[in-house]
Amino acid sequence: MKNDSVKFKKELSLGQKGCSLRKQSDGKGATQPHFLSTEPYKGTRDFYPADMSVRNYMFDTLSRVVEQYGYVEYDAPLLEETALYKAKTGEEIVNEQTYSFTDRGGRDVTIRPEMTPTVARMVARRRKSLSFPLRWYSIPNLFRYERPQRGRIREHWQLNVDIFGIDSVSADIEIIAVAYDILRAFGATDNDFQIRVNSRQLINFLLNDFLKVKNEHAHTLSKLIDKKAKITEKEFKAQAKEILGAKTAVFIDFLNNKDIDNLPKEFETNQGAQDLKKLFQMLNELNITNIVYDSTIMRGFDYYTGIVFEVYDTNKKNNRSLFGGGRYDNLVDIFGVEKVSGVGFGMGDVTLLDYLTTHKLLPVNLRSDTNLYICVCAEKYEKDANILARYLRARDIGIVLDITNRKISAQIKTAVNANIPFSICIGEDEIRSGQYKLKMLSSREEKLVSKEEIIQIILGRLKQ
Amino acid sequence: MKNDSVKFKKELSLGQKGCSLRKQSDGKGATQPHFLSTEPYKGTRDFYPADMSVRNYMFDTLSRVVEQYGYVEYDAPLLEETALYKAKTGEEIVNEQTYSFTDRGGRDVTIRPEMTPTVARMVARRRKSLSFPLRWYSIPNLFRYERPQRGRIREHWQLNVDIFGIDSVSADIEIIAVAYDILRAFGATDNDFQIRVNSRQLINFLLNDFLKVKNEHAHTLSKLIDKKAKITEKEFKAQAKEILGAKTAVFIDFLNNKDIDNLPKEFETNQGAQDLKKLFQMLNELNITNIVYDSTIMRGFDYYTGIVFEVYDTNKKNNRSLFGGGRYDNLVDIFGVEKVSGVGFGMGDVTLLDYLTTHKLLPVNLRSDTNLYICVCAEKYEKDANILARYLRARDIGIVLDITNRKISAQIKTAVNANIPFSICIGEDEIRSGQYKLKMLSSREEKLVSKEEIIQIILGRLKQ
Repeated sequence: MKNDSVKFKKELSLGQKGCSLRKQSDGKGATQPHFLSTEPYKGTRDFYPADMSVRNYMFDTLSRVVEQYGYVEYDAPLLEETALYKAKTGEEIVNEQTYSFTDRGGRDVTIRPEMTPTVARMVARRRKSLSFPLRWYSIPNLFRYERPQRGRIREHWQLNVDIFGIDSVSADIEIIAVAYDILRAFGATDNDFQIRVNSRQLINFLLNDFLKVKNEHAHTLSKLIDKKAKITEKEFKAQAKEILGAKTAVFIDFLNNKDIDNLPKEFETNQGAQDLKKLFQMLNELNITNIVYDSTIMRGFDYYTGIVFEVYDTNKKNNRSLFGGGRYDNLVDIFGVEKVSGVGFGMGDVTLLDYLTTHKLLPVNLRSDTNLYICVCAEKYEKDANILARYLRARDIGIVLDITNRKISAQIKTAVNANIPFSICIGEDEIRSGQYKLKMLSSREEKLVSKEEIIQIILGRLKQ
Repeated sequence: MKNDSVKFKKELSLGQKGCSLRKQSDGKGATQPHFLSTEPYKGTRDFYPADMSVRNYMFDTLSRVVEQYGYVEYDAPLLEETALYKAKTGEEIVNEQTYSFTDRGGRDVTIRPEMTPTVARMVARRRKSLSFPLRWYSIPNLFRYERPQRGRIREHWQLNVDIFGIDSVSADIEIIAVAYDILRAFGATDNDFQIRVNSRQLINFLLNDFLKVKNEHAHTLSKLIDKKAKITEKEFKAQAKEILGAKTAVFIDFLNNKDIDNLPKEFETNQGAQDLKKLFQMLNELNITNIVYDSTIMRGFDYYTGIVFEVYDTNKKNNRSLFGGGRYDNLVDIFGVEKVSGVGFGMGDVTLLDYLTTHKLLPVNLRSDTNLYICVCAEKYEKDANILARYLRARDIGIVLDITNRKISAQIKTAVNANIPFSICIGEDEIRSGQYKLKMLSSREEKLVSKEEIIQIILGRLKQ
């Protein structure tokens, strides 16, 4: 193993440019000691416990819904060899947006910017021993080098849900139902979001067979459709006309049609059209009706091959795509193993949190895992308080034992601020009698009870 | 923001040296297409669902125990500016063992090799607004560039448990009790591990006040104590003698003493000695007795200032340190904020998994989150199967719906292999009658039931 990579600095001096040292001046010309910055690295977030409980609430909800569909969790290394991302991901991402570097052994590595190449690698690695179909999910953190802005930061987490090994549209139906159920599980109503669906097969047929454009032009037109919502109608028409000439009107009519049952008759036998029809029928049977056909939904990635979808916020002030996914049938090819079809989606935590906040869907009080706060009247009672705490913890009571040796009022205040439901205080009387004043901190009600009664009351409350 | 860092390769050609391409030859001189490797990056692990369920079992157990003590979860960015690690961590780690590189904006960044500098930064960042004491935990992944070997790989996860803001030994007692309870929660008995405790204050007093050695020699002797177990007695004595001369025997006698109540009388007023005595008394009161005083426990990191401990596997074939921690009172100094004391430990997932495996403490069958497998007799019944699945999922039944359109026997086999407890099949009869043969897959018993009875039976079983 080589250890002499020139890409690594062997020595980093603290004072150099680019290090996060804060020079503190007293304003009189004298320079005080240099202190390290306490800020997190640019474009990333610290998760203090309050932030973490929100994140845990979000991730637990995601896991619960996907596990109800039988999806099982996987994970993978944060670093992959860079070659993995060169094969299928858009060039822009690898060249300008990844965190790529050469390790001390001379390997080109990248901090994963997305999970799909990794999961494809894992499926390919055990192509022969895995029993398909697979229903897999993961909530990895991902890195992209971007100028930080709303919803686009450098480190984010992303739910990845995929089903592998089902060629029929049944898989696409299930994946879209999962996406729908996730937003419903957070309390969103059908009016709060809309699912827009298209098929790459339909678009390929449109360009190659119906409009009969050349391959290189088909690619340009695909990109043009993808950015339709971002440019003016006039601009769109002008760019389309450059390639399509007289066929431009037919092209635009096709894109403006929102009724899957109203396609030109040439599309009747197209697999993409048939799949879309079946998908809309089935989802309507399942009472999922906030779903529309939208032939301008393309998804940026080159690897999609079938149905693609995006979920939009219907909030008029913020009518944007929340997340999306689709079918990719050729993803393991690059590993030289037998084909596996996949359908899946990715949902970022930043966008989701923003959506939940905007729609006021975050719970106000996330429940504390601690049930009881034990105050200690003086240091000499810590031993007995510790013994009691240990007894109760062994019976599934979560306890904070106050070992600060502060005034009781300060101890109680901490318990209240931490949103802990019950408290007791340990002093001479309690130790002698084995009876404790159990205080419900929200109502300040007190009740004299034994330790067994404490267990009964608290576990009884947890079951509610 | 600069985007022109020379540390980044703008283009990476697939065929170059160091990329993970596998050349496949047919043995006749002809070279077949190059395929990407499916192996994870060297020294890292893929977590397939079976591996992940073990990891989740481990992490869930860790979280449950620490949360019973009122510890709350936090997290932080994976990348930190490199300067953070230069300040307190041993030089060796930053210079040779980190994944450090320069980002596209010219910042020197490092993938975190440990969590303590990060948590110190977070505490310092909100030094004024946080209300102490804090009980915090996290289970981050960490990276070190190491030659992969047993228990020392490049990416691992580590439980970090810390209490901040308690100066008294009560915090050390709590932290060691947490460490003890974690191993007990995994099913280890007191005979399966031993907790060895020392105090840096005691060692400092030994070297500076009792043996009266110079500062630079004290440092050398500290390092020597730290490696005592790794060298021969003779070597140890020789190296000690170079510094201590005639005092060597006293030094060695001190280190060989295993009874905290048998220290030389000069140590009576030493805070370290008093803390250790109180700690042993209290832990014994709490019935934690597999704990010993061991003055050779130093812990490598420079930042420890008080009690330090390591937990050892007592297995004679593998009598090694599993994890450890201690008190560090000066960790936020480098940020120029008011002092905060901390006590904590870190526990790596690789060592823990190894320990649980060696001691046969991993559960044989981790319960599936899926309760019911719905087989579909023919594609035309998928609609009704989907509607039924949706109805049951809304009532908290986890369901895999088989959409493979395979033979029923193949569908059942999948359910059995996935360890799912129940199955039903949907066909003409079931749809007409609303009655389903609910099969318990372990015993193959069947019972004809309605969908409401399915819910009752499965939820009843979950409560057991």
